[in-house]
Order: sequence, then C-alpha cells, then structure tokens
Amino acid sequence: MSTRRDAILRASATAIAERGIRGLRVTDVADAAGVSAGLLYYHFRDRIGLLEAALNHINDRAREYRSEGEALTDSARDRLLRSLLGEIQDRPDVVENSLAWNELRASAVYEEALRGPLARTTAAWVSEIADAVSQAQLAGEVAGTIDPHRAAVTMTALVEGLSGRWLCREISTDDARSLVLGAVETVMPSELRRHP
Amino acid sequence: MSTRRDAILRASATAIAERGIRGLRVTDVADAAGVSAGLLYYHFRDRIGLLEAALNHINDRAREYRSEGEALTDSARDRLLRSLLGEIQDRPDVVENSLAWNELRASAVYEEALRGPLARTTAAWVSEIADAVSQAQLAGEVAGTIDPHRAAVTMTALVEGLSGRWLCREISTDDARSLVLGAVETVMPSELRRHP
Repeated sequence: MSTRRDAILRASATAIAERGIRGLRVTDVADAAGVSAGLLYYHFRDRIGLLEAALNHINDRAREYRSEGEALTDSARDRLLRSLLGEIQDRPDVVENSLAWNELRASAVYEEALRGPLARTTAAWVSEIADAVSQAQLAGEVAGTIDPHRAAVTMTALVEGLSGRWLCREISTDDARSLVLGAVETVMPSELRRHP
Repeated sequence: MSTRRDAILRASATAIAERGIRGLRVTDVADAAGVSAGLLYYHFRDRIGLLEAALNHINDRAREYRSEGEALTDSARDRLLRSLLGEIQDRPDVVENSLAWNELRASAVYEEALRGPLARTTAAWVSEIADAVSQAQLAGEVAGTIDPHRAAVTMTALVEGLSGRWLCREISTDDARSLVLGAVETVMPSELRRHP
C-alpha cells in the first residue's frame, strides 16, 4: 500500500472517530493527510469509495490488535477469546477504531450507499470469528454442536452493542470485557474444563 | 400528559428516526408538531431537555409493545422472551422507535450532554429486564444461579447490537429474532423443560 494512500485512510478513521461521518468533508480529510483533494479522488473515486476503503482499513487494523500477544501455547479457544476481547481495550488506537466503526454502523441506517461496504466488512469479521470457533471445535475445546456462524454473529453483535455503551462511558472497559468473557463462557463453555 | 406535549414528543421521535439527530432543529420539530417554538421551549427548556423527554417517550412506547399480547397463561419466562423480542418487529412504530434509539446512542458518543439521559433510560430498560429474569427465577423457570442484572445488560446490549444490523437491513427480522431467542435459550435455558 502506498504511504500516501495509507495516510489518507488513517486521517479518515481519525476524522470519523473525532467528529462523526455526517459532517465529514473529503477536503478536510485531504488536508489532515497532507494531500490534495485531487489525489484523494484519484485513489478513492468519491466519498463512498473513501468510506469503503476506510472500513477495510479499520478492519485490517482491528485484525492486527485482535491477534496481538498471541502465544504458541494459546489454545484455539484462547485465540477466539482474545480476538473478541481485543475490540474493547483502553488503548487510543482501539478506541479510535471502535468510534469510527460505531459511527459508520449508525450512519448506514441513513446513508444506503454505506450498507453494502459495511455488510461486506461485517461479514469478513463474522467469518474470522466463525473460523476461530471452528478451530476450537476441531481442537476439541468447544462443543461440536455449536453453529460457528450463528455463534459468531451473536458474539460480534454483542461486542457492537456493548461497545456503543462503552464509548458513551456508560459501562467501564473492565465491565464490558467481563460481559464478553461471561457470554463466551456461557455460549461456548470450555470442553477441556468440563472433561479434564 | 397534555396532548400538545405528547404531539411534540411524537414529532421528535419521528424526526430523529427519519433524519437523525445531528441536523435536528428544534424549530423543525415544532413545525411538525404544529406548535410554536416558544411552546416547545416552555415544555422542554432546551434541545437536550427535548431529547431527554424524547428518550423517555421512546422507552414508554417500547414498554407498551414489549408487553403487548401478554396472556394470563404466559409463564414468567415467556414474558421475558416477549419483552426482548418485542424490540425487533416489522411494525412501523417499532422500527421508528428502534431507529431513534439507535441514533441517540450513536450521537451520545459525540454529544456528552446526551449521555446522562441515555444512561438513565438504558438503566430503566435493563432494570425491567432484570426484574423479568428475577420473576422467572422465583417461578422456578430459570436457574437461580444466573445474575439477573448481568443477564439483563448482556441481553439488552445484544438486542442493541443486532438492531444496528437489522436497521441497516444486514440481517432480516426473522434472523435477528431467532438470534435473540437462541441467546436466551443458551443463557437462561428453561428449567421447566430440563426438569419436567
């Protein structure tokens, strides 16, 4: 990825997280990234093109911190848990990502053109979590009776719902993480623990 | 409640659901309700006062359709399920309520003055669901080991997360309801069914 394209995407995520998307002007993003509006249009065609690329950038960045700190000794179920808990952390990059995602989700209700890109990015996230569930099932750590896709949709929707409250400072980081952990323990109890 | 006050609140919920809150002007709401801006300020003091009253109005309306269709033969657990599933229905009033709530939640991230009113309304909703869990426990229909408050926070956050996707038409009404039902079955399996 060219560094300029990357700078534009970083500036977009920051602008969305800070001020929301509804007043977002392409020229402000270009200014923040230190490029001309022409270059921005060259890379992304239009505002929706920019927002779709920003969504992918946000998901790529989330993928990085979701897997951060993984150890070879982690079980498949540990990796699944880490991946879900990675979305709620007291770290500026995680908070910025969560703010931008939250705003894009809320805006897609009013801006139909955003729905396709958002649905594709959400499907990619759900698919990653479903894969993690399947891996944990193959390792015998999660019951084979669980539907990985349904579990993944439920868990990611719960993370989105809790994130909305967390970003409003209605619940603390610890409480939000504890609720995600509790939900995973309930929906996908460790088979290893139950049959030691 | 005076009919004029009620008309203003109905107009506010509709305006928020249709166009979002960020461009919401008090004078537009007054026009839609057929009252003067002066009367609106008399009743609600300012924009935040209006939005707080709108939140309560939305929650009151939700309380009505959450309990709609209740029968004397319903078990306490049936009432809990009905209450959660009531939030996701193909009905114009439910969709409008959900849109307005979703937008107020997303806006509270940027507008700090909204957070207090939203936290209070959310707490009222959580408390109602927690009461329904406790009732089901008292009736012996849900395991006494479940923490009603934690279960209620988790379930209402899941409903919020799924609603965001449902309002973007990313998941269907049936799928969203089926996921809520599945989550309740997993988190609070019917004790009556397990010990007939």
